[in-house]
Amino acid sequence: MMFEYYEKEAPQAFEEYLRIDHFKLKEFVSAVFQALQVSKDDACTVADVIVAADLAGISSHGVQRIRRYVDGIRVGNVNVKSHIRVVSESEAVALVDADNGLGQVAASKAMDLAVKKAEKCGIGLTLVRNSNHFGIAGYYSMKAVERGLIGVTLTNSEKLVAYTNTLGRSLGTNPIAVGIPKKKPPPILFDAATSVVPVGKIELYKKLHKEIREGWVVDEFGESLSGDATSIHKKVRENKAAILPIGGLGEELGGHKGSGLSFMIDVISGVLSGAAWGVHVGYTVGDKPSNVGHTLLAINIESLMSKGEFFSRIEKYIQEIKSTPKHSKAERIWIPGEKSWLTMQTRRKKGIPIYKTIYEDLRELANELKVHWILN
Amino acid sequence: MMFEYYEKEAPQAFEEYLRIDHFKLKEFVSAVFQALQVSKDDACTVADVIVAADLAGISSHGVQRIRRYVDGIRVGNVNVKSHIRVVSESEAVALVDADNGLGQVAASKAMDLAVKKAEKCGIGLTLVRNSNHFGIAGYYSMKAVERGLIGVTLTNSEKLVAYTNTLGRSLGTNPIAVGIPKKKPPPILFDAATSVVPVGKIELYKKLHKEIREGWVVDEFGESLSGDATSIHKKVRENKAAILPIGGLGEELGGHKGSGLSFMIDVISGVLSGAAWGVHVGYTVGDKPSNVGHTLLAINIESLMSKGEFFSRIEKYIQEIKSTPKHSKAERIWIPGEKSWLTMQTRRKKGIPIYKTIYEDLRELANELKVHWILN
Repeated sequence: MMFEYYEKEAPQAFEEYLRIDHFKLKEFVSAVFQALQVSKDDACTVADVIVAADLAGISSHGVQRIRRYVDGIRVGNVNVKSHIRVVSESEAVALVDADNGLGQVAASKAMDLAVKKAEKCGIGLTLVRNSNHFGIAGYYSMKAVERGLIGVTLTNSEKLVAYTNTLGRSLGTNPIAVGIPKKKPPPILFDAATSVVPVGKIELYKKLHKEIREGWVVDEFGESLSGDATSIHKKVRENKAAILPIGGLGEELGGHKGSGLSFMIDVISGVLSGAAWGVHVGYTVGDKPSNVGHTLLAINIESLMSKGEFFSRIEKYIQEIKSTPKHSKAERIWIPGEKSWLTMQTRRKKGIPIYKTIYEDLRELANELKVHWILN
Repeated sequence: MMFEYYEKEAPQAFEEYLRIDHFKLKEFVSAVFQALQVSKDDACTVADVIVAADLAGISSHGVQRIRRYVDGIRVGNVNVKSHIRVVSESEAVALVDADNGLGQVAASKAMDLAVKKAEKCGIGLTLVRNSNHFGIAGYYSMKAVERGLIGVTLTNSEKLVAYTNTLGRSLGTNPIAVGIPKKKPPPILFDAATSVVPVGKIELYKKLHKEIREGWVVDEFGESLSGDATSIHKKVRENKAAILPIGGLGEELGGHKGSGLSFMIDVISGVLSGAAWGVHVGYTVGDKPSNVGHTLLAINIESLMSKGEFFSRIEKYIQEIKSTPKHSKAERIWIPGEKSWLTMQTRRKKGIPIYKTIYEDLRELANELKVHWILN
């Protein structure tokens, strides 16, 4: 494939953004966490996850979220000296206690363990309890993909979504991410919240002064909210609105499917791991440990089929999808993960677009923590 | 819980239905398959899966679908003397070849194998290739649940669903079913097609003369179809319409999420198993073997947490959901699997409502196959 510039969430108003080299950004983020007494290794892991989100065009989970993690550490609600341990283990399954440490570190180690078990047994599953927000779920599935395995990542998260037929928020946006290796890039990466939209999309619409359509958000009485993104975003922040599950309100368009899937993800990641579930999952900057629960699963392709055969089959499937007649209103036919991958390639060359207010906040953070400012 | 009569898909026009005892119905269905040279054991398995669908209120997968299986056998497209074999096996993973036999038999054996592996290793995965339509996915997850394990079932199926941004049909309704054991019934059972609706719902609306709403089906040009169910059902049958994935048309309400999830289910069940995928998955009554692929996964709760603790935690979660304020437009707050379970209890007592035209067709089938008619 020839190199193609493409950006998901491409900046609309160029004058509001700066382009930052991703290596520099990662170095800076790592320095921020090290200044907060996080070990160098752990800080590098956290920085890698955060900058991967910005590279992939998921800015809601990128550097704009550093404040949340930093504040969580500062208020003492996240343990930077966590002792992550394997609580119990059988041949293909492990349970990990994250000791209220950074979610990125615990989930990375948990996926490494799942991969190791899958390499031996064909499949490996690690559940994690007592963890914190871990950033983008797809990152951990990609860790398995880099080793040539299929990776599946689930997590619960703080309440934001309405369970079908109820008012208020009972569920997190509980995402599912499935990564599939291919011979040639891009790998396949399906990474989706079980809500209609992630909360970051509402923030983005506010920033871009775009109108929010029906079917994303409901108010405290379960009535659909639409229109001005600023007021809707305010309601979400004030806990006066809930995001709808995939399939929307009620059951007519399958809302119970999105809601049910989110619930099942929580039953495995939260209930079975020994973590919090539903309304009990904490926010990073709260008054109690978040006790987030994660699920990391790896499948060894070679326990079922030679890699060569698998790669050739998956390539054929993709070619078939790509050569299907396109809908007249669609710009292009996408394979899961393709947008993110193209965005990543583009931003590795052109730099990551950072919104100026975010940039100023990072500089302010550097001042506060006496971290050397390298993002000029 | 006191016994409560409740029926999903309750008959609307009572005079159009007969109530049949579920034991008798199962005996009859088993006799039909035995008359087609299916072994007694296999015929009992198939009958159990088919009648389970009617008991659970999923009539589209119940006895009204017998014709399809029967015709598949009659035209020689399904092998009743199949030799199901384990092709390859590692500690926690197995690959099964169904030898073009009945999907119900292969998937049952495959879940048994996954359970056995999970009991030893904590988790067990079986993929199945060269199979046929297996009925309701939830049946196999419930097999794991009956043994006290968590069961996950995926399958691909013949093309019916539009891949996001394309025209026509590229994907099956590729369902996902997750079963979770509980101390007291009902168990949790999430069983959902990755399409907005299953095709059976369109048949049902036709039967009930109900109007079909926007957002379920599109025509061959990708335009939304709504209104008269009879003409829409006709278009679906003539391959001139496609069902939309969960999330609907395009990406605005998450259609790419439903479409992507369906694709991932196919990559594991179809591509990785060595079965057909996408448009290549056959119809039971076709001119070539269907080559359907299934995924059966079992997780051993006790490899992670004592069953007592798990049961107590899941019960609390359910109580919390149930005590959430109800939406004013909703009748009730449901836990996945609760509707099906209540329907099953009700129909075990009151009998299964069989539509009269279906009843007559069963009688005709009995004549054709010289099966003793016991459903008077």
